[in-house]
Amino acid sequence: MAKPLKTAITPVRAEDYPEWYQQIIKASDLAEKSPVRGCMVIKPWGYALWENIMRGMDDMFKATGVKNAYFPLFIPLSFLEKEAEHVEGFAKECAVVTHHRLEKNDQGGLAPAGELAEPLVVRPTSETIIGDSFAKWVSSYRDLPILINQWANVVRWEMRTRIFLRTSEFLWQEGHTAHASAEEAIERTQMMLEVYARFVEDFLAMPVIRGSKTASERFPGAVDTLCIEAMMQDCKALQAGTSHFLGQNFAIASGIRFQNASEEEEYAWTTSWGSSTRLIGGLIMTHSDDNGLVLPPRIASAHVVLLPIYRSDADREKVMAYTEKLATDLRGQKYHDRSVQVEIDTRDIGGARGWDWIKKGIPVRVEIGPKDIEKDALFVGRRDHDPKQKTSIPRVQFLQDFTATLDEIQRSLYDRALNFREAHTQKIESREAFDAYFTPRSAEKPEIHGGFALSHWCGEAQCEQQIKEALNVTIRCIPLENTPEDGRCICCGRPSRERVVWAKAY
Amino acid sequence: MAKPLKTAITPVRAEDYPEWYQQIIKASDLAEKSPVRGCMVIKPWGYALWENIMRGMDDMFKATGVKNAYFPLFIPLSFLEKEAEHVEGFAKECAVVTHHRLEKNDQGGLAPAGELAEPLVVRPTSETIIGDSFAKWVSSYRDLPILINQWANVVRWEMRTRIFLRTSEFLWQEGHTAHASAEEAIERTQMMLEVYARFVEDFLAMPVIRGSKTASERFPGAVDTLCIEAMMQDCKALQAGTSHFLGQNFAIASGIRFQNASEEEEYAWTTSWGSSTRLIGGLIMTHSDDNGLVLPPRIASAHVVLLPIYRSDADREKVMAYTEKLATDLRGQKYHDRSVQVEIDTRDIGGARGWDWIKKGIPVRVEIGPKDIEKDALFVGRRDHDPKQKTSIPRVQFLQDFTATLDEIQRSLYDRALNFREAHTQKIESREAFDAYFTPRSAEKPEIHGGFALSHWCGEAQCEQQIKEALNVTIRCIPLENTPEDGRCICCGRPSRERVVWAKAY
Repeated sequence: MAKPLKTAITPVRAEDYPEWYQQIIKASDLAEKSPVRGCMVIKPWGYALWENIMRGMDDMFKATGVKNAYFPLFIPLSFLEKEAEHVEGFAKECAVVTHHRLEKNDQGGLAPAGELAEPLVVRPTSETIIGDSFAKWVSSYRDLPILINQWANVVRWEMRTRIFLRTSEFLWQEGHTAHASAEEAIERTQMMLEVYARFVEDFLAMPVIRGSKTASERFPGAVDTLCIEAMMQDCKALQAGTSHFLGQNFAIASGIRFQNASEEEEYAWTTSWGSSTRLIGGLIMTHSDDNGLVLPPRIASAHVVLLPIYRSDADREKVMAYTEKLATDLRGQKYHDRSVQVEIDTRDIGGARGWDWIKKGIPVRVEIGPKDIEKDALFVGRRDHDPKQKTSIPRVQFLQDFTATLDEIQRSLYDRALNFREAHTQKIESREAFDAYFTPRSAEKPEIHGGFALSHWCGEAQCEQQIKEALNVTIRCIPLENTPEDGRCICCGRPSRERVVWAKAY
Repeated sequence: MAKPLKTAITPVRAEDYPEWYQQIIKASDLAEKSPVRGCMVIKPWGYALWENIMRGMDDMFKATGVKNAYFPLFIPLSFLEKEAEHVEGFAKECAVVTHHRLEKNDQGGLAPAGELAEPLVVRPTSETIIGDSFAKWVSSYRDLPILINQWANVVRWEMRTRIFLRTSEFLWQEGHTAHASAEEAIERTQMMLEVYARFVEDFLAMPVIRGSKTASERFPGAVDTLCIEAMMQDCKALQAGTSHFLGQNFAIASGIRFQNASEEEEYAWTTSWGSSTRLIGGLIMTHSDDNGLVLPPRIASAHVVLLPIYRSDADREKVMAYTEKLATDLRGQKYHDRSVQVEIDTRDIGGARGWDWIKKGIPVRVEIGPKDIEKDALFVGRRDHDPKQKTSIPRVQFLQDFTATLDEIQRSLYDRALNFREAHTQKIESREAFDAYFTPRSAEKPEIHGGFALSHWCGEAQCEQQIKEALNVTIRCIPLENTPEDGRCICCGRPSRERVVWAKAY
């Protein structure tokens, strides 16, 4: 048996993918569990990713006319009950506030006191509370459309949690819009899906499939749910953003009415769309390797780390001056609207320093020693290359090419992810081949299977259900770019007009 | 009797200041009450102010080495109890989560179910939950300092609420740092107070007094609380930011221990500092007038509105083309790191349009009609001038001077606020004069009184208490720049070494 590769992360992906994921988060110092069940602490290196996501996405939202606002954290129970499917969908995972102060109890400790007349639910999503405002804001067609977004925390009480992917509290944005016609609302639903797709592909370097959900996978209360789906390195799908056409369901529930141009009263047509800190989980699982986190430059917490190397005090002074000058030159450059973010690491910990930054996923590492300075050159490593592959590059050339190098890394990560997805996507025609594709290769590695199957589906929920029960495989989406094609349902063999994406999913 | 002035806001300040404040918020469309007791809805024009506050302040924090992170919304009750004074200070206003799902009850409605073993408090502030993380992160003096900030929502259940000034949920930032020495922690406490002071003066154009709180006004659990205090137009003080030196109190409560350079175990020294959406309330009450909101350009939701004027379709095309070109030219300019924000209002509502933007406080209004275009000139109004004072300015000159004009408005607002404060601040030596100063001029206008009194105080809590009970006047702060001066306590007549700032307060 070949010796295992020397890697920075234990276990490696092939050994235990879920545990590898936890170890990546630990080694890169992104986040940690908190003492509050299911809630996470997002540490600075992880929160910087969220800041970059917020900034990039927010600019894209605003370019479509959306404005930010803020609505209450608490939703009166009676509001949630207004839309039957909606409350049904969220009732099992609601944190409920029942009291508004603490009082000394008999044991000298504190206990909840001041019971509320109506319990308040910590928002799991805000359709009903925002709908209440929209109802006040709208009276005429001239008040429409309303295009609002909110950056906020939400709570969905999850029994089994995993950092970034499924936590009881998470950070997200939720967009809510109201329109005078179904057509316009549908157009907005599609537009925001496209914003998500472009953001996730361009910033996070994650290729996605744009599609619509089947009825069974829709947002509770929606008429149609559009989504983008990405493939992780264990070949499972991750939903990376959803955009819902809500029809008039929530407008009726909240009373969002307007007078149209003919002076008739109508209910508005609404949409909602959201993406969350879950994106960070997807980012990790798409690009990271057995040496640690890998960050695409457009979203990276920092772009480059400078590692000055010296033994003597005289060297120290010279190397530090050179390093500071280089940092200033780099910070003066713009990379896609953001100043280049530079870290300087002067810790006296030897080779562990370079490995620390590899584990943290920084796109570029630069070693600067007295000999490099003599040549006016730098010793450069790229996170998309093997850790040992480092190149001496003249300083001037390095600076000149720096943002182009970042773009090259960005592209190489995207291409690698796309190639991976394509290598693990198959058109499958028979149920036998389908079953084999999704059956784990061995009992020891239950997560390893084929990937995405493009197979026909008749449109019946019961076929979907049967396959879910048999294989834990679901329809991730009906791709928007589908070309009609005659075939037979992978489950029941009845005629079908198009293929859908089947996969195991997070 | 003279005719009352024609104003856009009813009532005017002199008639009913508190009601005027509510009407300003309504007329400028900043925010509104929500159906959830004590919580507000921040509307886009108001939220843009908060976005600008976040951006400006965040840059200043980061320049001092602070990094952002995120900690759980929920605090286990046992955590809050760790610091005795702290929990005492917040117990009466805590929203408590006691259940984690909803279940159908006998009446067919939903009721809280799944009772939690330990109740969770919705964070009123995060010293205890962040302290728990710090305790894990720190083991050696090499791990210090830790400099963390969090942008978040917090909840303090208030019985009497007022939009922006006192709401049950509000948005804020809370900084938390840990240090290896008391000196360093005190230095950080002062540094962050200075960041607040500079931000509030430079961005919000609100002059502030930097000071420290007396023991009775300190943050629960703090050793020392520094603050900045501003004067509103009703001569009351508003605390606009606080920075706390927490000594080792919270480090002991949370177990934040480290080994110092001599390998001895010590408790860390911590600080915390916060500012909130309350700043928006202060902004409103400092600058707004009887015509509506007045926004300082550096924080304004938008800098300029263009109001195209046309009657015929031919004019329309010409005017709109000219307007769009002007908007593009303006947006291409930078005003203090932010692109110039331009609104174009094409609503067909006549003169109400201009008044709308006056009420919304936009710094510059530009009317563009066919005759102006012939002269290649614009008809310009400034929010710091009388609404009727409008000037024709050649377009080229307008563009050339635009950011200088914004700076001029910014300065004029600051100067006006500073003059107001100085006109309403007096050194007062006798208790008689002090009482008269703080006694309302008439029963009908209970809010009108002298302003800030600079008077001596012996340092005894009972004198503070006596004056509070008699006049509802408190010590807002002991100014940091105080020069020692011998005098006699305004309350008891005993010797005093310095003057303090006495005022009624929000």
